[in-house]
Amino acid sequence: MRKIIVYIATSADGYIARPDGGIDWLNRPRPKGNYGMGEFLKSVDTILWGRKTYDLAVAMGAPDGGFGSMKSFVFSAHPPAAPAPKAVTFVGEPVVDFLKTLRRARGKNVWVMGGASLIASLLDAGGIDEFIIHVVPTMIGEGIPLVRPRHRTIALDLKSVKKFSDGVARLHYGVRRRT
Amino acid sequence: MRKIIVYIATSADGYIARPDGGIDWLNRPRPKGNYGMGEFLKSVDTILWGRKTYDLAVAMGAPDGGFGSMKSFVFSAHPPAAPAPKAVTFVGEPVVDFLKTLRRARGKNVWVMGGASLIASLLDAGGIDEFIIHVVPTMIGEGIPLVRPRHRTIALDLKSVKKFSDGVARLHYGVRRRT
Repeated sequence: MRKIIVYIATSADGYIARPDGGIDWLNRPRPKGNYGMGEFLKSVDTILWGRKTYDLAVAMGAPDGGFGSMKSFVFSAHPPAAPAPKAVTFVGEPVVDFLKTLRRARGKNVWVMGGASLIASLLDAGGIDEFIIHVVPTMIGEGIPLVRPRHRTIALDLKSVKKFSDGVARLHYGVRRRT
Repeated sequence: MRKIIVYIATSADGYIARPDGGIDWLNRPRPKGNYGMGEFLKSVDTILWGRKTYDLAVAMGAPDGGFGSMKSFVFSAHPPAAPAPKAVTFVGEPVVDFLKTLRRARGKNVWVMGGASLIASLLDAGGIDEFIIHVVPTMIGEGIPLVRPRHRTIALDLKSVKKFSDGVARLHYGVRRRT
């Protein structure tokens, strides 16, 4: 079964971006191997984006989100301002319905790019199988949390921890199925 | 030189307590060795408490905060309702002034118990040397963050990561001195 994975970086105080969306603190030299990113990319063929996250990637110069060989789905109640590239599909249907189709379709794993609202919607719909969190050794003080806050309790299984040479820590979790 | 250390547990989504202060999610079987707590306790002789955190410990039945052999300092603008036990001193002076005295005094390391406001005040005054964070494999959805949010950027050095048998991950950071 294909897995749906949040593969992401957070600050040491748990934020994915500054309050204005800023990710300047992510702009740092990367150790050789780029945290195993190449291997991860080979394991996925589909990316799920929240609208703000996708628009940010487009604004940074990547009209297909920067991963042209992958199938991208952008969750948004509103259509794109300009026609989206061929690999990019805008999804207006509820996350729960989309998940059923996605789970049924054969393919490699699915990469959830964020942001916090999409992660929350997927998580609360049982649509996240794993979190692979790269904790950057910087506190940014305030910002957008990994998962949009609301009342929820989710049990995780810690699969592994890893320390990279530049001080990034990787926490790999499985999300426990609710019974 | 004695070190001032935040030794604490957080949820996997970065909270130290539920919005109402609840820590029910911390109440779980602990692996043999209790995460090395005994060793840590031997390395410290002083505890720093925020007022709410101390009052919570008292409400849970520990008038000296539960660590009677240690010297406890409680930061509060208001004196205690009842006379505090001998080992407990209420501190009304600014954190910056208290830190000078604390740094000058000889002794073992200092344990910062929390909460978020005290950690923030100490951190912003250059009064935290290390964070030892035990990440519990549970997301609680919303709550009180480890450090009270405000605009700040703090560089950390990752000293070690450790995976315990019950899925708790320990991240040990040094706080980089600002130059």
